[in-house]
Amino acid sequence: MPENRAAPSTAEVRAFHRTLSNWGRWGERDQLGALNLITPEKRVAAAALVRTGRTVSCARALPTEPSADNPSPVVHLMTGTATEHYGGDYFALAPHGFATTHIDALCHIFHDGMLYNGYPIERVTAHGALELGIHELRDGVVSRGVLLDVPRALGVAYLEPGQPIFPDDLERTERQCGVGVEEGDILLVATGRWTCRDERGPWDSRERLAGLDASCLPWLRERGVAALGCDGVSDVLPSRVDGVVLPIHTVAIVAMGLHLLDNLDLRRLGEVCGAERRWAFLLSIAPLVLRRGTASPVNPIAIF
Amino acid sequence: MPENRAAPSTAEVRAFHRTLSNWGRWGERDQLGALNLITPEKRVAAAALVRTGRTVSCARALPTEPSADNPSPVVHLMTGTATEHYGGDYFALAPHGFATTHIDALCHIFHDGMLYNGYPIERVTAHGALELGIHELRDGVVSRGVLLDVPRALGVAYLEPGQPIFPDDLERTERQCGVGVEEGDILLVATGRWTCRDERGPWDSRERLAGLDASCLPWLRERGVAALGCDGVSDVLPSRVDGVVLPIHTVAIVAMGLHLLDNLDLRRLGEVCGAERRWAFLLSIAPLVLRRGTASPVNPIAIF
Amino acid sequence: MPENRAAPSTAEVRAFHRTLSNWGRWGERDQLGALNLITPEKRVAAAALVRTGRTVSCARALPTEPSADNPSPVVHLMTGTATEHYGGDYFALAPHGFATTHIDALCHIFHDGMLYNGYPIERVTAHGALELGIHELRDGVVSRGVLLDVPRALGVAYLEPGQPIFPDDLERTERQCGVGVEEGDILLVATGRWTCRDERGPWDSRERLAGLDASCLPWLRERGVAALGCDGVSDVLPSRVDGVVLPIHTVAIVAMGLHLLDNLDLRRLGEVCGAERRWAFLLSIAPLVLRRGTASPVNPIAIF
Amino acid sequence: MPENRAAPSTAEVRAFHRTLSNWGRWGERDQLGALNLITPEKRVAAAALVRTGRTVSCARALPTEPSADNPSPVVHLMTGTATEHYGGDYFALAPHGFATTHIDALCHIFHDGMLYNGYPIERVTAHGALELGIHELRDGVVSRGVLLDVPRALGVAYLEPGQPIFPDDLERTERQCGVGVEEGDILLVATGRWTCRDERGPWDSRERLAGLDASCLPWLRERGVAALGCDGVSDVLPSRVDGVVLPIHTVAIVAMGLHLLDNLDLRRLGEVCGAERRWAFLLSIAPLVLRRGTASPVNPIAIF
Repeated sequence: MPENRAAPSTAEVRAFHRTLSNWGRWGERDQLGALNLITPEKRVAAAALVRTGRTVSCARALPTEPSADNPSPVVHLMTGTATEHYGGDYFALAPHGFATTHIDALCHIFHDGMLYNGYPIERVTAHGALELGIHELRDGVVSRGVLLDVPRALGVAYLEPGQPIFPDDLERTERQCGVGVEEGDILLVATGRWTCRDERGPWDSRERLAGLDASCLPWLRERGVAALGCDGVSDVLPSRVDGVVLPIHTVAIVAMGLHLLDNLDLRRLGEVCGAERRWAFLLSIAPLVLRRGTASPVNPIAIF
Repeated sequence: MPENRAAPSTAEVRAFHRTLSNWGRWGERDQLGALNLITPEKRVAAAALVRTGRTVSCARALPTEPSADNPSPVVHLMTGTATEHYGGDYFALAPHGFATTHIDALCHIFHDGMLYNGYPIERVTAHGALELGIHELRDGVVSRGVLLDVPRALGVAYLEPGQPIFPDDLERTERQCGVGVEEGDILLVATGRWTCRDERGPWDSRERLAGLDASCLPWLRERGVAALGCDGVSDVLPSRVDGVVLPIHTVAIVAMGLHLLDNLDLRRLGEVCGAERRWAFLLSIAPLVLRRGTASPVNPIAIF
Repeated sequence: MPENRAAPSTAEVRAFHRTLSNWGRWGERDQLGALNLITPEKRVAAAALVRTGRTVSCARALPTEPSADNPSPVVHLMTGTATEHYGGDYFALAPHGFATTHIDALCHIFHDGMLYNGYPIERVTAHGALELGIHELRDGVVSRGVLLDVPRALGVAYLEPGQPIFPDDLERTERQCGVGVEEGDILLVATGRWTCRDERGPWDSRERLAGLDASCLPWLRERGVAALGCDGVSDVLPSRVDGVVLPIHTVAIVAMGLHLLDNLDLRRLGEVCGAERRWAFLLSIAPLVLRRGTASPVNPIAIF
Repeated sequence: MPENRAAPSTAEVRAFHRTLSNWGRWGERDQLGALNLITPEKRVAAAALVRTGRTVSCARALPTEPSADNPSPVVHLMTGTATEHYGGDYFALAPHGFATTHIDALCHIFHDGMLYNGYPIERVTAHGALELGIHELRDGVVSRGVLLDVPRALGVAYLEPGQPIFPDDLERTERQCGVGVEEGDILLVATGRWTCRDERGPWDSRERLAGLDASCLPWLRERGVAALGCDGVSDVLPSRVDGVVLPIHTVAIVAMGLHLLDNLDLRRLGEVCGAERRWAFLLSIAPLVLRRGTASPVNPIAIF
């Protein structure tokens, strides 16, 4: 039973901040982190994957109703309706919402008083993030996307909330799907979260969520993953690492400069991958240009 | 002087609602309008344009400060800073904002009590748009993009606020750039708006803005444009059509089912097109999945 | 058992719109309704009740966390903290929230296409209420307040959710407390709602809530109540009147022009009334001056 | 010319933090500051001033349109209109807005790392103010109010933006109006700001505004003022004190624990005072109960 395997110790996770660090790798003033692994050539090769012209969203609809896994819903109000001369509206949201599909900026997570690349956390002020803001991604995140649909490889509908994914689960999924994660890829990991929610109803996902065990961190670094997305929050919850609530978020973002996409909906993507019998595609992610912001809601589009 | 040419009469514009109509063309229950012109084959051909792997945003940063052309700025507040354990924020906006890059849903504009395809405007309620909402675009708008940089073709830095663009201006630009607008293309028209603003300061753009004369409407229909974007609002303001404030918006959206992108920033796109000596590219637009919404802020990404 | 008594029939409630109407009573263009019953002399007499100088709030804290009885919490965000040079914040709310202490403007409720005093509902537009907006109360609502603490008179800690209050319950409470409701009074009716919530936890209060039976409507009119407040929403829920969800709201607001205060917290007021052995006091209510608004959160202050 | 008189020096203002301090005066854990000067007896005496029963608002309407003196307007949106079954709305605001009538909580201003009464500024967190929040005023601020209408005493329609008010201006106004500011009073100082704005149009009030010279601080302490309100921000702007932008705000709030009311509209109050020939009245201020908030919009009501 994979669940019984121990997570790395607190000391091991702490050591990752040194051994997996990308600080300085792309210059002292770098703002992009592992996105630097997406070269123009990589993008050209990714575009060459487009063969049937099908597109698929990887986003959930913005959650406008409160629920156990979404205590702070998006406010959506109409400002123009049938009685006016136009349809108009207004919305308000905290993009890091627990059920909102979003991409974290690298300024989102702190460790030992530092941000990625050694910027001091004091750069994240009440006037916004003066370094590593989401606007740094204004030209989009476009590369090859690879979906690893772990429940499919394990022959289940979904992972149990709280079930960790280990590196060999990722590799088994690669082998079964005939796809290999390569440098510059955007890796999307499916845990079956929304299928589980449909079946069992919403639960407080801050307490239990399937996701990557901290032992996946060296694997992500080794493979040269450029950005990581998940239908959960990438981290398994609880993390099983004493005193480290979110080891994947912390090491990936702060040490590795790896952007994370949380709360994707990968069900339709999985269906299309199955139907097309391929698990790699052109993936285009276009964060809103919110200066000094810490995240953006997104609608990542896979193009086959 | 093109400015002296008359705009179509009110009666002519009104007739466009009949002569240019796409109602029923893609079925009685169609929600996508002219986006139906983007076939899978079109997308595959567009992806084949990716040769250098460069990406360029067509969005302005979300305007968070008030100005003459942006009376209702985006609210952006930080919820987590250096004194907390993370960087977090919150934002609120009306996506149709006069300086916000956004895509209009087809429910945005009404004519004679009707929406595109004959849906009654009563379908746009205080609980959202029950037809033609922005969520219908959840799988993205991906096709060949073509930039027509009109000031460049006319040898000026920018058009004057209020200056109309006629079909022969569009065609002259096509010839000079060696590009032709084809069925299923997303057409982006640059007027030099932001260059003008940089030079002269902001002005109330609801009163004067360069854009397409209403006589371009048949041209757009003929060419099979799938979506239309502009650094202004596509319409020239004032429209010079008696009693019709926004003839392009009204006929394009309601009669033709043509999605409009407003307030793009096309300056960097123009530079890259010039440097790459080509005015066509893969364009990916990913509206947020806001159920029953009337628009979405977007960050359209051109891929070369 | 009072619960077994029948509520008025649908026809009877409908008749109240005619028999209890105040339309035209204070002029064709009246905007204040029953607040006209608060004369300057009434206010002077109310101020003469101030004898000990004690003040008590009748408001709940604005609910910033979601709960079963508050699905849309108030958003409260800090914009200035220890790292800045000042403390600053921002908040957003829908004042009619189910757990928010607020006063309804007379434009809040519609009946047969009409507002109070015969204004057509078309005056409530997407640009705000052109008649009967909350700003009409800019000079405050100041009069004698009377608390009728019904559970106290019935010898219980709180009424059961769904339990109706009848006119004779109100009169029994008057007799027991030695107080009589008079013309121009602001009547506050306690049901023990928050004590019940503390004991049993929150429930969906839209489904069941103690409050006035529709048979209280003639009594309110007869007594000349100027404004009515409750720790619930004045209406008993369900109303037990076929096809009329909120008979008190509908008849009181639309026919009688009676302003309602919802979701008060009357526990401390009850304690002070008990300690002071009097159930009447000077009451000051100061709605925010929101032009064309439909309600305001308020903090009514009782002065003893 | 009073304008030519020098303001106190930076060192003198700094010394006020020691010489005018109320820290510890009402206990180590005090949260109310100078509001402690409002005794129950004071309130009883204030209520005895009610003789004609007239009420007057001291608030401006919430500013929902942007202007030179209000760059961040209140957002006000309708959620229910004629097409729905009710009138409903939503609003969002930063209460410290430059044209919004509000009362500052004592946590609003910092000095040398400290809040009023010696609380460390670290108590003002991204989760709200853990000390001195606006909810401490939940039972209202009710006392005798005194209006000093300085332009009236000086025989002008309004003070010039930037014109300082000195203690002898306050005393001249007292003499002319036959009123004396006493311990426990809420002092309202009119500068004629909105009359000036009506005549000249809005200007950036952060740069120039009539208000109290820093030399008024000892006077305020000596008289035992319990709360201070102004149609400006109490401070004259610029302050003419080197390196101290807001000496009144800083010393009054941090050292003296004096609550400030900003952006009142005192025009109608002045008219009524003139008509009633008295400049003292019962004043009732009821901040919203926003837990841990730094301010509240208010509508202070004067009762004559």
